Amino acid sequence: MQAYDYIRDGAAIYERSFATIRAEADLSGFSAEQAQIVVRIIHACGMVDVAQSVMMTEDFVSSARKSLKKSCAVLCDSEMVAHGITRARLPANNAVVCTLRDARTPDLARQIGNTRSAAALDLWGEKLAGAVVAIGNAPTALFHLLELLDAGAPKPAAVIGLPVGFVGAAESKEALAKRHDIPWLVVQGRLGGSAMAAAAVNALASEVE
Amino acid sequence: MQAYDYIRDGAAIYERSFATIRAEADLSGFSAEQAQIVVRIIHACGMVDVAQSVMMTEDFVSSARKSLKKSCAVLCDSEMVAHGITRARLPANNAVVCTLRDARTPDLARQIGNTRSAAALDLWGEKLAGAVVAIGNAPTALFHLLELLDAGAPKPAAVIGLPVGFVGAAESKEALAKRHDIPWLVVQGRLGGSAMAAAAVNALASEVE
Repeated sequence: MQAYDYIRDGAAIYERSFATIRAEADLSGFSAEQAQIVVRIIHACGMVDVAQSVMMTEDFVSSARKSLKKSCAVLCDSEMVAHGITRARLPANNAVVCTLRDARTPDLARQIGNTRSAAALDLWGEKLAGAVVAIGNAPTALFHLLELLDAGAPKPAAVIGLPVGFVGAAESKEALAKRHDIPWLVVQGRLGGSAMAAAAVNALASEVE
Repeated sequence: MQAYDYIRDGAAIYERSFATIRAEADLSGFSAEQAQIVVRIIHACGMVDVAQSVMMTEDFVSSARKSLKKSCAVLCDSEMVAHGITRARLPANNAVVCTLRDARTPDLARQIGNTRSAAALDLWGEKLAGAVVAIGNAPTALFHLLELLDAGAPKPAAVIGLPVGFVGAAESKEALAKRHDIPWLVVQGRLGGSAMAAAAVNALASEVE
């Protein structure tokens, strides 16, 4: 049963992974606490070059961490993001919320003429106040979040803007990165995804690497 | 509420995404049915160049599809993979199984001196026979699957080998790609992840693009 030679110890695997990432990635543009987030995003996708495309506001990490410690909710656009978050790392038993499969979402989508991923955000309501928002799948969800904020929705503590793909992903992240009213993080362009978004939450949740 | 100009119709977004992928990606090395899988993997990660790193056996798509239609189980190494699979696309109400959070897994991991991700596979047992296996996270899970097969475990119908990262991912996929006893798909190197693995299952599940 030991014909394959590989590291079988989880902690050793993490340690060697993060050492490799820090040896190969150019993290010079980031503060120490920002670099923690970038390292985990790289870990989730296997690409050290993604560091070049990560942008975040100066207050992103501090605002998100402060709010997480005060037991804010983590609001996710997809079940994959929600299930990628390591509950044990969250500092205050924070609620992890995804309303995509809420029974009301399909009707809401028809009413507002948008995708279910976007309509699901209409169910976040007051939970948005001070929340950490993690968008890892749908550009329409990120666009709709910006629409809700423009319409007076409560402000989240931080927005992880990581929708992925070929239609609207780059554009929705560009729109987020123009905002000065909320702390945000984006990966520019087409790259993103639920694994990166969950990794960003996990990195914010604890300073333990 | 319409300050942002973007496509709000889910079907139109899919259609334009797949058209962009087919216009930009080099799919010339793949059969028509293989290309369906590659297109969805690209869709999940936002990178058309990943096509260059996808390898699969000639019988991978046909073996997986045949078994899915016969209601085989889909066995996943992580909750993220399991939650990325679109149940409605599966042809025979197939069970989607992830045993990572089974109460027995931590003890098993200690007993076999491996990660929980690897140990979870020891609970698959006879379910492995004819299953579609989707490894989207842990290299140790893929290595351990190969160890189980060498020890005489029942053969799956197809193995999606897409662990991601810096320690063991490339090596475990190389080991899988040397096998002649099971149909497999890999993305060579460090790239992979739960979104790509779920996308591969979703592509196999239905020929509808």
